[in-house]
Amino acid sequence: MNYMLKDENAIYYECGYSCDNALYLSLGNEAFFITDSRYTIDATQNVKNATVVIDRDLYGAAVSLLKKARVKKVIFDPKEWSVDGFERVSSQCKVKFDPQPDFSHKKRIIKSDEELKILAKAAKLGAKAFKALAKEFSANGFGENEYTLTYRAKGVLSDFGKYELSFDPIVAVNANAAKPHAMPTSKKLAKNDLLLVDAGLKYKRYCSDRTRTVQADKDFVFETKQRFKRKKIQKAYDTVLKAHDNAIAKARSGMKAKKVDALTRDIVTKAGFGEYYVHSTGHGVGLDIHEMPYISTKSDTVIEDGMVYTIEPGIYIPGEFGIRIEDMVAMVDGKAVVL
Amino acid sequence: MNYMLKDENAIYYECGYSCDNALYLSLGNEAFFITDSRYTIDATQNVKNATVVIDRDLYGAAVSLLKKARVKKVIFDPKEWSVDGFERVSSQCKVKFDPQPDFSHKKRIIKSDEELKILAKAAKLGAKAFKALAKEFSANGFGENEYTLTYRAKGVLSDFGKYELSFDPIVAVNANAAKPHAMPTSKKLAKNDLLLVDAGLKYKRYCSDRTRTVQADKDFVFETKQRFKRKKIQKAYDTVLKAHDNAIAKARSGMKAKKVDALTRDIVTKAGFGEYYVHSTGHGVGLDIHEMPYISTKSDTVIEDGMVYTIEPGIYIPGEFGIRIEDMVAMVDGKAVVL
Repeated sequence: MNYMLKDENAIYYECGYSCDNALYLSLGNEAFFITDSRYTIDATQNVKNATVVIDRDLYGAAVSLLKKARVKKVIFDPKEWSVDGFERVSSQCKVKFDPQPDFSHKKRIIKSDEELKILAKAAKLGAKAFKALAKEFSANGFGENEYTLTYRAKGVLSDFGKYELSFDPIVAVNANAAKPHAMPTSKKLAKNDLLLVDAGLKYKRYCSDRTRTVQADKDFVFETKQRFKRKKIQKAYDTVLKAHDNAIAKARSGMKAKKVDALTRDIVTKAGFGEYYVHSTGHGVGLDIHEMPYISTKSDTVIEDGMVYTIEPGIYIPGEFGIRIEDMVAMVDGKAVVL
Repeated sequence: MNYMLKDENAIYYECGYSCDNALYLSLGNEAFFITDSRYTIDATQNVKNATVVIDRDLYGAAVSLLKKARVKKVIFDPKEWSVDGFERVSSQCKVKFDPQPDFSHKKRIIKSDEELKILAKAAKLGAKAFKALAKEFSANGFGENEYTLTYRAKGVLSDFGKYELSFDPIVAVNANAAKPHAMPTSKKLAKNDLLLVDAGLKYKRYCSDRTRTVQADKDFVFETKQRFKRKKIQKAYDTVLKAHDNAIAKARSGMKAKKVDALTRDIVTKAGFGEYYVHSTGHGVGLDIHEMPYISTKSDTVIEDGMVYTIEPGIYIPGEFGIRIEDMVAMVDGKAVVL
């Protein structure tokens, strides 16, 4: 099987190194990591099981290697390649290019034992960071706006620069939490406000992902047991938590992903909040923050041991509040284990 | 002229709003901003001079609009579109798609008066942030490693979350500065070390970009006048500064970009450091941190009034040190004005 990769994480998965200007070719028994001279030292020291090729023109170098190897067919992911980059390679070679969407993501859907250990560590560090963040916000967060809170969250979650973040954290207060992808506003955090935090950090390039929703009273903690003063919020919260717990308890290897989705969705729908659950139950997590399997209403993907994904049901009442509870699980011996 | 855009900044330039899942179509006298329902409120409130279309399937929506408009030819930038996205549109329409690389960047190469004001303000805020950063590093930076210094730089440059950054700042000490794209290491800053900082922030989405190299003695400042203890460093520094000042003094509208490049390169070469000047003189700055014009040895682009670009010569001695001095200039009345 011959293939060519352009995505940074797809390349890292193959050879243990990547940078922002690289191209990877696997041709029969040989593999090539192509980059420019800015990365000569780092690439030579870190790339495993591939020959490092230094060339200003990555595409030209790929064309030369393809011609030399005389391969007939090369797989590529059309989501990963720009029209321009693909043209520069494909127009110069008499090779059949076989478009396979999500080629690398499909290879990466089952995590190795080593990857599971790294992801478990990432999740543990993420959980630890949430504890530290609750302390920081309890002590210094009240009266600050979402911009400042988001900035502080980045500091705490990265352990002040030690870890990269999986994505820009979401820190949303009250009605702003009703947007699943809330951007920070000048809304300030007051005592007893609803506070939603969705964040994660990277450990050895693998992502963690976690969401907690709390009533921000004095000395609050980001635990799943929460008491809200408003009854409507408490009812929605209890529903989301029940949905979250139900999917974790009942997800099984061999199940279709849409069945796992139903494990959260049916509970939210029965409680009358179905129309406010506006997204899927979860997504795979690995080198990318969003990868396979996707736990959605339409996914026929069969869940297997070694898959890692999020369970994150939510209820979003526009103009009022939003609730989401998210954990990462790994499928081990047929069941979902929270990381 | 009909065109379709996928890049976030290219879209923002057209209609004053964009988000991470959008597609823009300009068809004759009509324009359409297509996004999904997560962004309905923000798009409806902010998009100017275009009809907002909400659809989960951006590409499908674009196909419908293209069919309805009955246009014959549509321009697209092959660098901006993935093979997959382009196929989803082009395979469904009997339209001639005209690939024009850098289509939006070419439109944006001459800045309007309004854009010049915003870029000047971004540069001013950037310069102010460098002053604050020198204070922070003088007071608390010695003994800290590059990871921590980079983290602190992000805090100061963003004014603790108020501004987005143009890119992850480069904070490099001594030999690590010899890598033009240095990544942080555990190397600690000691008194009298060489310190290079390359950083910028965004104001109203427009980028600033600035580099200073200093001898980090007590109470150092990020000014271009610098005294280094090592003679070799001082000689290299004086050469870079002379090259930088020469280009700013002599760049003229009507000149080719490669002539501007020569204004820095000839000085560095004559001083005997030519082989250590491993990159171009500069790049355009705007909504993107790297845009046209590119000030390189091969560029035939003619410099014109209203262009904004960096002048950033450098000398990099592997294993020893690196020096770069960078400012942004705007071409006004035929001359380069430092922003």
